Amino acid sequence: MQKLTIIKIGGNVIDNASVFAGVLRDIAAMPGERIVVHGGGKLATELAGKLNIPQTMVDGRRVTNAETLDIAIMVYAGLINKKLVTGLQYTGTNAIGLCGADARTMVAERRKKGDIDYGYVGDLEAAGVNAQLLGALLGSGLLPVLSPVTYSPADGLLNTNADTIAAAVAVAMSELRQVELVYSMDKPGVLLDSENDSSLIEKIDREAYGLLVKQGVISGGMIPKLDRIFYALQHGVSEIRICAPQHLSGTYGTRFTN
Amino acid sequence: MQKLTIIKIGGNVIDNASVFAGVLRDIAAMPGERIVVHGGGKLATELAGKLNIPQTMVDGRRVTNAETLDIAIMVYAGLINKKLVTGLQYTGTNAIGLCGADARTMVAERRKKGDIDYGYVGDLEAAGVNAQLLGALLGSGLLPVLSPVTYSPADGLLNTNADTIAAAVAVAMSELRQVELVYSMDKPGVLLDSENDSSLIEKIDREAYGLLVKQGVISGGMIPKLDRIFYALQHGVSEIRICAPQHLSGTYGTRFTN
Repeated sequence: MQKLTIIKIGGNVIDNASVFAGVLRDIAAMPGERIVVHGGGKLATELAGKLNIPQTMVDGRRVTNAETLDIAIMVYAGLINKKLVTGLQYTGTNAIGLCGADARTMVAERRKKGDIDYGYVGDLEAAGVNAQLLGALLGSGLLPVLSPVTYSPADGLLNTNADTIAAAVAVAMSELRQVELVYSMDKPGVLLDSENDSSLIEKIDREAYGLLVKQGVISGGMIPKLDRIFYALQHGVSEIRICAPQHLSGTYGTRFTN
Repeated sequence: MQKLTIIKIGGNVIDNASVFAGVLRDIAAMPGERIVVHGGGKLATELAGKLNIPQTMVDGRRVTNAETLDIAIMVYAGLINKKLVTGLQYTGTNAIGLCGADARTMVAERRKKGDIDYGYVGDLEAAGVNAQLLGALLGSGLLPVLSPVTYSPADGLLNTNADTIAAAVAVAMSELRQVELVYSMDKPGVLLDSENDSSLIEKIDREAYGLLVKQGVISGGMIPKLDRIFYALQHGVSEIRICAPQHLSGTYGTRFTN
């Protein structure tokens, strides 16, 4: 099967001109087919602040009322997505930006109300990814850039976690391609000591993961992230790596194996 | 050749729920291939107001500095474009929203500084329209929804008049399809008496146009609009009609012939 690299980047990469330029250059230089998934983040919070729309975060997830959803659509599917597409075009890479409603690329379900009502927030599974369409776009030489806004036929546009999107797209595309998934994060990878960037763990398999959780090295918000990574590895994704945005190219970071 | 209808709608149609629902229903019900081009308008001005970014209009065109360009990207390529795409998906019509940078759909040139510097404003010609790509999307059953944000390899994203985009896309697509162009406007068409909606002129040819300008019936901002219409008719577009958003279906409005 043909190789496909899926790169997840934070929405904040566009804030710092030199980081942004480096990320664009690295993505442009990667051989073979690529899909970029980007997050949202700080810019949406800033815009909400300027517009006096109070934001509530629960466990790192934004509670999304109708006004906040409009901000997510504007900032994620608009500003960040189009700046990434334009930046990639500058490098000669023919990118196409998509949210979930575009060609029904990502059909999600609104999260059920539990103890907390997250509002217009969706969860995407691999079955909701339009892998045929993404494959056709890749086949015609385009690089899809996916924003963290999905679509539900029942509930419309939904704010969706970009890490989840990257994993779902990777699993869905592994039916058609040999998929490598690269997550860029603030840290260079999983660290033995979170305060020490040089304490990088280069390789983690499922057994080591269990041990690291027991020892408390991996905790909090990293657990759902790594659960998703091992889920993706068990469902057809070939290789997964976490690294800093500066190390998208190469092999530096934490690599995961089953 | 296969028939293609290009529908230009104002960005304001999404503001009024019943007008919006009607426009979506009419577009969904049109037979054959369709492309939608939408404008921007009021929502961007409102957002700029809330963010205290002063807006300057010259001859009905927005002077676009860097901050105002970001607003245009957020509101036009983000909010309006994605609400239109989502609305069309609700009707079962598989739409895909694009700005000019997406797959280099619309490559424009930044307007030269004359007496007025319009800032990040672009002008699109038929040669800058990626007709092959739009044809391929149409051929795979998608309805492209184009936002009034174009791309220049030298200057990045550019705010662009949606009427001009509709005409350029219509001319470019007339190489591949038999194109009908429908412009929706606030008025039901060209009126003999601008205060009287029932004084509609049903048909205007080039000779009648000259006369109506001489008589002062057509003046001001309508002249560049109608110049573009006759330009498009002379460059391959088969049929052009101006109508109110309520009359996208049917034949009501002003029809133009060479």
